[in-house]
Amino acid sequence: MEMEQTIIYAFDIFGTLIFAITGAVKGVRCKLDILGVVVFACTVGCGGGMLRDVLIGATPVAALTNSSYIIVCVLVGLAVFFLAPTFVGRWRTILFCDALGLGVFTALGVAKGAMYGIGPVGQLLCGVFSAVGGGVIRDIMSRSVPSVLTSDFYATASLIGGVIYLLLERTSLGLLGKFLACTFLVLAIRLIAIKFKFHLPVAETALPVDDYLTMHRP
Amino acid sequence: MEMEQTIIYAFDIFGTLIFAITGAVKGVRCKLDILGVVVFACTVGCGGGMLRDVLIGATPVAALTNSSYIIVCVLVGLAVFFLAPTFVGRWRTILFCDALGLGVFTALGVAKGAMYGIGPVGQLLCGVFSAVGGGVIRDIMSRSVPSVLTSDFYATASLIGGVIYLLLERTSLGLLGKFLACTFLVLAIRLIAIKFKFHLPVAETALPVDDYLTMHRP
Amino acid sequence: MEMEQTIIYAFDIFGTLIFAITGAVKGVRCKLDILGVVVFACTVGCGGGMLRDVLIGATPVAALTNSSYIIVCVLVGLAVFFLAPTFVGRWRTILFCDALGLGVFTALGVAKGAMYGIGPVGQLLCGVFSAVGGGVIRDIMSRSVPSVLTSDFYATASLIGGVIYLLLERTSLGLLGKFLACTFLVLAIRLIAIKFKFHLPVAETALPVDDYLTMHRP
Repeated sequence: MEMEQTIIYAFDIFGTLIFAITGAVKGVRCKLDILGVVVFACTVGCGGGMLRDVLIGATPVAALTNSSYIIVCVLVGLAVFFLAPTFVGRWRTILFCDALGLGVFTALGVAKGAMYGIGPVGQLLCGVFSAVGGGVIRDIMSRSVPSVLTSDFYATASLIGGVIYLLLERTSLGLLGKFLACTFLVLAIRLIAIKFKFHLPVAETALPVDDYLTMHRP
Repeated sequence: MEMEQTIIYAFDIFGTLIFAITGAVKGVRCKLDILGVVVFACTVGCGGGMLRDVLIGATPVAALTNSSYIIVCVLVGLAVFFLAPTFVGRWRTILFCDALGLGVFTALGVAKGAMYGIGPVGQLLCGVFSAVGGGVIRDIMSRSVPSVLTSDFYATASLIGGVIYLLLERTSLGLLGKFLACTFLVLAIRLIAIKFKFHLPVAETALPVDDYLTMHRP
Repeated sequence: MEMEQTIIYAFDIFGTLIFAITGAVKGVRCKLDILGVVVFACTVGCGGGMLRDVLIGATPVAALTNSSYIIVCVLVGLAVFFLAPTFVGRWRTILFCDALGLGVFTALGVAKGAMYGIGPVGQLLCGVFSAVGGGVIRDIMSRSVPSVLTSDFYATASLIGGVIYLLLERTSLGLLGKFLACTFLVLAIRLIAIKFKFHLPVAETALPVDDYLTMHRP
């Protein structure tokens, strides 16, 4: 049991770190000052987990009771800020981090949901919220359209990972195995989707598009 | 008592369905892909209730513990997506759904607030938050100005419905009666306000308007 | 102990009132109608506290259990609406109110965090969230870039105030003393930062700026 806690904790810190990087890089790209970058790193790194904890009632939320999360985010924010010229342009690295974080937080959300006794659909949703929450907050705060809405196979990847995790729960596979399987599956789906530019169908409608949303669509 | 639970539950599912429709239609109008439409349906359908549950401490929130809510939203999202060309243009239908959902969730919020022992002003607020929350999330995510801020008699309608519900609590009227009265009153106020273009007064100010907000005002 | 509760309560109501003013003025500047202004006053006045209460698990949140908060916000909203021509133009007054509210809510957040047994880093974060939450909600709803991201020394001021509060906790200073010290320190930092236009460093990057964010930067 203690082993399981350690695994979950390690994944949680890792996912937080990964997402904090994407937040900090977004902050640098938006020309925020050093503190804005750190705030963004914290918001994106801890946002999804906070949302998950609040929805399942795990309060005070983990990011407040355990200071490691915030410390990790602050350090990441500072590091990205000072090393910005070196790697902000590496867009592929950022996309990779984002995909990895998506996988880690999906597994975490599904696992943590189970601890609070919610059913499989709830667990699935809990996984998607954890995975997608931080990014949605990042996008809303920087006034981008949330990529969960426009990126094909973003929430879908998280959802498929969550389903696999639930299926693996019925096998004798250990926690670490389930976490790794879910994480790498989500990562793989995201990378393949980005590489081959998978597109989900868009509904046909003769209506003029609500162009405010699409105007700045990335 | 069990009868009351059933009534509340039926209204809750109905309101979720109605709001999910408005979310899915907004998604189609914004040219989101199939999953984006489903995510939008879920967010709008469950958002107000989640906000309410989190604020009163009813966690894990209902949308996670009971899978019916999400299943309803997913089905609505898919249905709207595939039937989009047929009815996305029916703007009046959407406005009607939105007004109906507003009424249902006002009654639900006020009733659920009472169960958690908060006073009448808190109950009222709880009703307005439930009713308005999903729509605000929808508007923020699609980068529209929240209609609760610009639509005249939107939150007002919910507020008046909430007051009536609180007054009816002092009578011998049953739960179903209170729910129906509140719902139809809110619906009526909204429809009359839309029909006759009621406007609430706007403050006079010689200052230049913060035009970013008003630029895309619908 | 009862004395302490009274002090905390008084500061809470005062901070709510101050932030409600900034919300209502923003509403008037955005040409919202009377109810929109009141909604904005409530959202900004109570938003930060609600966020804090939800994150630490103090539910139902204070703004729902105690009707004074909402009543104060509604009255402020109405007052600002009717007196708008007189003082909406007084931009300095608004900045002063915002700075004062920032200080009050920082102290409140740190103090309330301690009651729920979270460590010093969590308390600090709780202070910043309380202080900054209402303003972020206001800015997102009115589609401005959250000033916490662009204003230099906004979250920083709150953070420094929080650190001082934590240091003072180790002294024999009473609650009122800690509250006043924290509030006035934050207020002073903000005012000095505004007056002398302090700027925090911005990361150097050769990349084109994400101009959507900066386009409307105030």
